[in-house]
Amino acid sequence: MITIDINCDLGEGFGLYKMGQDDELLSFISSANIACGFHAGDPMIMNATIKKAKKKRVKIGAHPGFDDLHGFGRREMKVDIDEVKSLMFYQLGAIKAFCDYHQVPLNHMKPHGALYNMAATDPSIARAIVEATKSFHSSLIIYGLANSELIQACIDLNMPYAIEAFVDRTYQEDGTLTPRSLPFATIHSIEESVNQALSIIIHKKVKTASGKMIPLEADTFCIHGDHENSVELASALRKTLIDHDIIIRGLGEQS
Amino acid sequence: MITIDINCDLGEGFGLYKMGQDDELLSFISSANIACGFHAGDPMIMNATIKKAKKKRVKIGAHPGFDDLHGFGRREMKVDIDEVKSLMFYQLGAIKAFCDYHQVPLNHMKPHGALYNMAATDPSIARAIVEATKSFHSSLIIYGLANSELIQACIDLNMPYAIEAFVDRTYQEDGTLTPRSLPFATIHSIEESVNQALSIIIHKKVKTASGKMIPLEADTFCIHGDHENSVELASALRKTLIDHDIIIRGLGEQS
Amino acid sequence: MITIDINCDLGEGFGLYKMGQDDELLSFISSANIACGFHAGDPMIMNATIKKAKKKRVKIGAHPGFDDLHGFGRREMKVDIDEVKSLMFYQLGAIKAFCDYHQVPLNHMKPHGALYNMAATDPSIARAIVEATKSFHSSLIIYGLANSELIQACIDLNMPYAIEAFVDRTYQEDGTLTPRSLPFATIHSIEESVNQALSIIIHKKVKTASGKMIPLEADTFCIHGDHENSVELASALRKTLIDHDIIIRGLGEQS
Amino acid sequence: MITIDINCDLGEGFGLYKMGQDDELLSFISSANIACGFHAGDPMIMNATIKKAKKKRVKIGAHPGFDDLHGFGRREMKVDIDEVKSLMFYQLGAIKAFCDYHQVPLNHMKPHGALYNMAATDPSIARAIVEATKSFHSSLIIYGLANSELIQACIDLNMPYAIEAFVDRTYQEDGTLTPRSLPFATIHSIEESVNQALSIIIHKKVKTASGKMIPLEADTFCIHGDHENSVELASALRKTLIDHDIIIRGLGEQS
Repeated sequence: MITIDINCDLGEGFGLYKMGQDDELLSFISSANIACGFHAGDPMIMNATIKKAKKKRVKIGAHPGFDDLHGFGRREMKVDIDEVKSLMFYQLGAIKAFCDYHQVPLNHMKPHGALYNMAATDPSIARAIVEATKSFHSSLIIYGLANSELIQACIDLNMPYAIEAFVDRTYQEDGTLTPRSLPFATIHSIEESVNQALSIIIHKKVKTASGKMIPLEADTFCIHGDHENSVELASALRKTLIDHDIIIRGLGEQS
Repeated sequence: MITIDINCDLGEGFGLYKMGQDDELLSFISSANIACGFHAGDPMIMNATIKKAKKKRVKIGAHPGFDDLHGFGRREMKVDIDEVKSLMFYQLGAIKAFCDYHQVPLNHMKPHGALYNMAATDPSIARAIVEATKSFHSSLIIYGLANSELIQACIDLNMPYAIEAFVDRTYQEDGTLTPRSLPFATIHSIEESVNQALSIIIHKKVKTASGKMIPLEADTFCIHGDHENSVELASALRKTLIDHDIIIRGLGEQS
Repeated sequence: MITIDINCDLGEGFGLYKMGQDDELLSFISSANIACGFHAGDPMIMNATIKKAKKKRVKIGAHPGFDDLHGFGRREMKVDIDEVKSLMFYQLGAIKAFCDYHQVPLNHMKPHGALYNMAATDPSIARAIVEATKSFHSSLIIYGLANSELIQACIDLNMPYAIEAFVDRTYQEDGTLTPRSLPFATIHSIEESVNQALSIIIHKKVKTASGKMIPLEADTFCIHGDHENSVELASALRKTLIDHDIIIRGLGEQS
Repeated sequence: MITIDINCDLGEGFGLYKMGQDDELLSFISSANIACGFHAGDPMIMNATIKKAKKKRVKIGAHPGFDDLHGFGRREMKVDIDEVKSLMFYQLGAIKAFCDYHQVPLNHMKPHGALYNMAATDPSIARAIVEATKSFHSSLIIYGLANSELIQACIDLNMPYAIEAFVDRTYQEDGTLTPRSLPFATIHSIEESVNQALSIIIHKKVKTASGKMIPLEADTFCIHGDHENSVELASALRKTLIDHDIIIRGLGEQS
């Protein structure tokens, strides 16, 4: 039996502003990374999103980011280690309160945007994130990019982790993502995206932008919730995986 | 043996901005109400303030407010009940994460500014605050104004509470505070403030602005941390209480 | 020759967040009220929106509001007169800089949300808004609700004004809008909305929710940009008005 | 007759938060750089600060920065050129509205914090700042670091500029400031600071941290308003300059 997790960033609106198609996507995914009020989200939205995710039996994760609503948490900032740990504690605590209210476990943690990218390449930031998460709750599963410093810090600090792959991004021969500044960084065809997912799940290999097959294992796939064809891609991916007897389910304990 | 609690709002800076004289005041008080990042405070400041309060063996409480940094949480806003509950959960969760990190209990909860005032007179807001606090942690002590709707909601919902009195504000004959818009609302003399505290503690009575003695019981006194003579008042109050064999200590379990 | 202005609030996104269908609506309206960065909008969006409006020969107006992004400027706040004047100057100056850069005149000013509503009923806030606008530029046309304190303050202070009517809201017998809390407050049918506009323009009368015809004159109609059928309504209104030889054009000087 | 300008950043509070000793410093300086509501300041504070500066006959300048209140505009951010120009227009327009209200000219522009530092070394950001300022008002004097890209862009685009030197920072042999990360970056003695100013004004030379005399010309000295001994330093500097028959006055047209 092969299983895979499909995760998506949800609850990224703010006040009256909407972002993504949360309601539609919740039917196709197994894990939701919920914005914690810094790069996006607010208390009302967090509360409503967790309620909806619980109803759909989708696993709930924290999705902490930089306190930069205007830049949607995508702008890299100079931060020191203490600041990273403090913003992790703050956001983890905030979302946990809503999970407790709805009596649903907080299952995982995936950093957002610039924090995710910085954690992939900066070992001290990666370690600060893992230390804070471990101190907060030592069984939270940390989502990170394959071969990233974040995954390395999880290994070093003995924290559970999930390796994330992307269905709509191409890979380079060294296993890293093709930077968005280069051509062919993004896969626009839904069919190709779904085939890339199948290749990674079944063969543990991916065809690079240059055409070479390289090994790639993944525990979870990320669907971008704010793309135009997010719902169509999520729906097609789900259908294809089921057709291949691959079970889509969240990581960690099964209820 | 007579005991009393002295509380003060702390951690109300933001980024580089400072507010109040936290370091000095921590030597004279028994309970700190720590801003939770909405009306004031930020993750770095919350972390540092809890660390300092723990060192001084001062009890730690949440001090949630409206998300209105520019108005310092003092502007009344139209909010519905769900919004009040959500902002309570968010801020309680955030501060709890720092308490857990520093291995110190979260002891009490005192709403800030406009939220405190609205909770004093609006029964539905009072109830929403108490319900959220009870759901979050049913042993948190809720601080509220004597005779307020907030205290009434604690009684109705069977939550522990502490009745708060003020040493630098005068009372009217019906037991409410003299509104700031009237003359004699504020007591400027440190001696008079200290005497008012002694009268409430020892005789459970206070002399109103009109000169009449009325009954008033209190579990805790509030020192305003942002006044010019806060430190002087706190120091004088502490000395006088000790001279009268009154023990200053926080409420709830004693460690 | 009958002329009428059609105005719409534009540029109300923030960062990556979108609001309304600005590009589509610009083809059907004659005046744009552009958010100034307080309740919505940011410098990049203001710049882009003014550029687009100029290209479509749509008149540009300031749309200042309270500094409350989370509440989208719709929450009433306690503010004093000096604060109202200061936030008016700030936002008027900010938008004027972009108009100057694009060499297009700033034509009018319409307060947003809670500021609009408070200006309709509170004479001191209405006067503060008109005084600040007049001091900033004495030929700016102020948009206000019929019979409002804002229009009265314009008359008192000799400022040009435009009386605004709504095509998708019903009126009461005293000429005020039916409050949203009552049934029949909103007109959902596009045909009825367009007919209400025609009645006001041609006959200077409107049929109230109770069925009575009352007099109502208007210089400008407001289309809400964030409604589901905004574009359809704007398109239908434009077509019908043109079919009736009514000329849609902005107020003030014609270029 | 030798003249020199002394400038200071003012109006950097926010809401109830205070920063610096504006009232005291206004007596000793000739130019005020006033925060424009992004890194610090708000409409009420801008209004009050311009009013006070006018009364003291101190020249008024814009002090625009990044929209980062929490980081006080000191965190470098990835921004593109259009964004820089937009935030310049927005803040210049906002402060100009208050100058017009108080009938006092806007005399100069000095970027704040990270924007100042990035403009010193990044030619495209420097050029964007100068282009926006020139488009806004071609006679605004731009304050920049000696030998910076910002000054170079002023020369290239034919904009008036003022070269700024620091009294409390040491210089390296290449004429740049000793980075704060190195020892001896800051001059703590008021006497040494004043002597450095005198040397630059009279001899157009400064002694580097390594003890060598190098040439340095300056039009204006910056006093940091948020340092502990700001007022003492400003007062001593003023007294010494007057004793040496050096006239302290703002740049540009004299009223």
